[in-house]
Amino acid sequence: MKESIIKNLKLVREKSPLVHSITNYVVMNNTANALLALGASPVMAHAKLEVADMVNIAGALVVNIGTLDEFWVDSMLLAVKKANERDTPWILDPVGAGATAYRNETLTRLLGFKPNVIRGNASEIMSLAKANVQTKGVDSTHSSDDALSYGMQLAKESGAIVCVSGATDFVTDGNRVVEIANGHELMGKVTGMGCTATALIAAFMAVEKDYFQATVSGMTLMGLSGEIAAKNSFGPGTLQLNFYDSLYQLEDKHVNQLAKVKHRED
Amino acid sequence: MKESIIKNLKLVREKSPLVHSITNYVVMNNTANALLALGASPVMAHAKLEVADMVNIAGALVVNIGTLDEFWVDSMLLAVKKANERDTPWILDPVGAGATAYRNETLTRLLGFKPNVIRGNASEIMSLAKANVQTKGVDSTHSSDDALSYGMQLAKESGAIVCVSGATDFVTDGNRVVEIANGHELMGKVTGMGCTATALIAAFMAVEKDYFQATVSGMTLMGLSGEIAAKNSFGPGTLQLNFYDSLYQLEDKHVNQLAKVKHRED
Amino acid sequence: MKESIIKNLKLVREKSPLVHSITNYVVMNNTANALLALGASPVMAHAKLEVADMVNIAGALVVNIGTLDEFWVDSMLLAVKKANERDTPWILDPVGAGATAYRNETLTRLLGFKPNVIRGNASEIMSLAKANVQTKGVDSTHSSDDALSYGMQLAKESGAIVCVSGATDFVTDGNRVVEIANGHELMGKVTGMGCTATALIAAFMAVEKDYFQATVSGMTLMGLSGEIAAKNSFGPGTLQLNFYDSLYQLEDKHVNQLAKVKHRED
Repeated sequence: MKESIIKNLKLVREKSPLVHSITNYVVMNNTANALLALGASPVMAHAKLEVADMVNIAGALVVNIGTLDEFWVDSMLLAVKKANERDTPWILDPVGAGATAYRNETLTRLLGFKPNVIRGNASEIMSLAKANVQTKGVDSTHSSDDALSYGMQLAKESGAIVCVSGATDFVTDGNRVVEIANGHELMGKVTGMGCTATALIAAFMAVEKDYFQATVSGMTLMGLSGEIAAKNSFGPGTLQLNFYDSLYQLEDKHVNQLAKVKHRED
Repeated sequence: MKESIIKNLKLVREKSPLVHSITNYVVMNNTANALLALGASPVMAHAKLEVADMVNIAGALVVNIGTLDEFWVDSMLLAVKKANERDTPWILDPVGAGATAYRNETLTRLLGFKPNVIRGNASEIMSLAKANVQTKGVDSTHSSDDALSYGMQLAKESGAIVCVSGATDFVTDGNRVVEIANGHELMGKVTGMGCTATALIAAFMAVEKDYFQATVSGMTLMGLSGEIAAKNSFGPGTLQLNFYDSLYQLEDKHVNQLAKVKHRED
Repeated sequence: MKESIIKNLKLVREKSPLVHSITNYVVMNNTANALLALGASPVMAHAKLEVADMVNIAGALVVNIGTLDEFWVDSMLLAVKKANERDTPWILDPVGAGATAYRNETLTRLLGFKPNVIRGNASEIMSLAKANVQTKGVDSTHSSDDALSYGMQLAKESGAIVCVSGATDFVTDGNRVVEIANGHELMGKVTGMGCTATALIAAFMAVEKDYFQATVSGMTLMGLSGEIAAKNSFGPGTLQLNFYDSLYQLEDKHVNQLAKVKHRED
């Protein structure tokens, strides 16, 4: 898999795909910076009067419900409808799934438009898979190990590649499972790191039609960048900045020497 | 008071309370990161269709009117109504009080829902207390010393704990006054430091029913973190990042050795 | 010109003008921090019920359409109408001009209110000048050299000072052209650097009635700060932070020794 990750990183840097994000207010700046550091070109647009036009020129679409409301949900629906029409790949980030009825209803509507990839933390994926869980806000209260079987079920039912992120990240299509053990615990102390992972995956979806590999590429490079950044960080503040630097400076050797990515052994 | 501050810091880190913020666009990322660095769990939600549900699961609520509009004010009102019903503590940050009639009218409506704590800069507190002041934008044009008597009056009239932040911060219930002389002038060159203080206080309100002590705890640890951060900072950019690191790394000894918090001597 | 730049920097630091920004969600935090680091006083307000009142007390207005929608465009129109009534200088940042029909229509409406300055990247300025270009998202796909003649045409037609920013920045009133060769390529990897330049220009417009000189001052100090910051940066993360520090610490000698600003030789 490392060859595929290295190839995909090169592709994003060469093609600089336009990634259109309809995402939450809290992380817009972070995810735009992460996409730029990776080599992609971010755009954020949500107006009903232009959201479909922006999907028209984008290589991939991110829909993240973190700070959803009735106006933004309408825009999300217009965007994913257009993505379906044009076969533009899109990824769903179900922030806070399970926390409120409104989030759950919105997610049901969005799932009807067949996201190509879904990335969430364990609690969010379990909630989406209709596990009987009560989510507390937007941070996970379960481990990704707990959530893997739900993730596989969700992948089978939805047809999407599902990524359950956590200390170990899992990527599954319902049958195959890849696990990625990169990253650093300090990343959990920086807001929007999950949303950033979603955005990075989208950049790879724009250049790699195998969305399973695109997801593995995004999550591995995310984890690697965080891990390398943490070495020179004194806390979550410096980590956040060093993360962009690490992502910008990633080389093939980092993937070859440090990536802990493998097919899961049953 | 130092024992109480140390105890409250430990409590927040252990319980990781969910703090629900309805706040302004400019500072959402900052305040989420500050809450994470402190050990709390931030969530931002404003949709009319879920805002009350989110208050239901939160330990404390922040209402900050920095970038208010007609849609968000409706959400704020729904949230504080629910907070009142459930006795969820809430804190009001009256950003830009006095700058426009709309801000003043909105603040009057919000004050009707009895915030447990109000934190603002001198100009904002003076405006709320109906002092005859003209605020210039969102930065204070008065000193906190000037505003203390207005803060005491506001506390008596509103029933809230009032914090006037500035070079010296004051916390008052209308009778008692605690003053905190930590912090660094460079903090005034980073946007949203006041909003961050408000968010930190909210985290303490979720674990400490004595809101006077919760406010003193939040303001003291805010000032300490900024002061420690400033030692290794070359300007407002590095200060902002070092602030999160300092907040994350705070230890009991920092409170014991560096906190300049005391009851005001008349 | 260096004397004028030094004089204007001193003026902003002394007067700390209130700069009112109606800008996009992605960069609000960045531009507020940049204005603070420069010495100005930022405020963001967009509610229909107060936007004109805020223009009333502001020294300059920024209108940036990065994440426009039907509600925000109404606010922008109310604000520029009031700016015209009061002769408050305002600057237009046409983010993503040419990317969608909605952006183009909105820009046409805004141009009707006679911005004093327009700053955009090459693609945006070419699109505004009705060049037959297709913009890809919000990043420029043309060089500022390509766009200069379009910028001069736009300046003549609109009556605005036009700044085309890029590796070399151009400032023109349709006849005169000043070019600024400061800056660093890494700045293109940080989101919102263009929007930040626009905000800085606005601060100078509040203290310098010669908007050509105000624009030259803003762009030169922007480029200088980025260039100085890049010397100690390892990537876009550290650059962003060091930028605020450099801007905060700028001294006359930096302008005298490092500024590469000159009238264009034909």
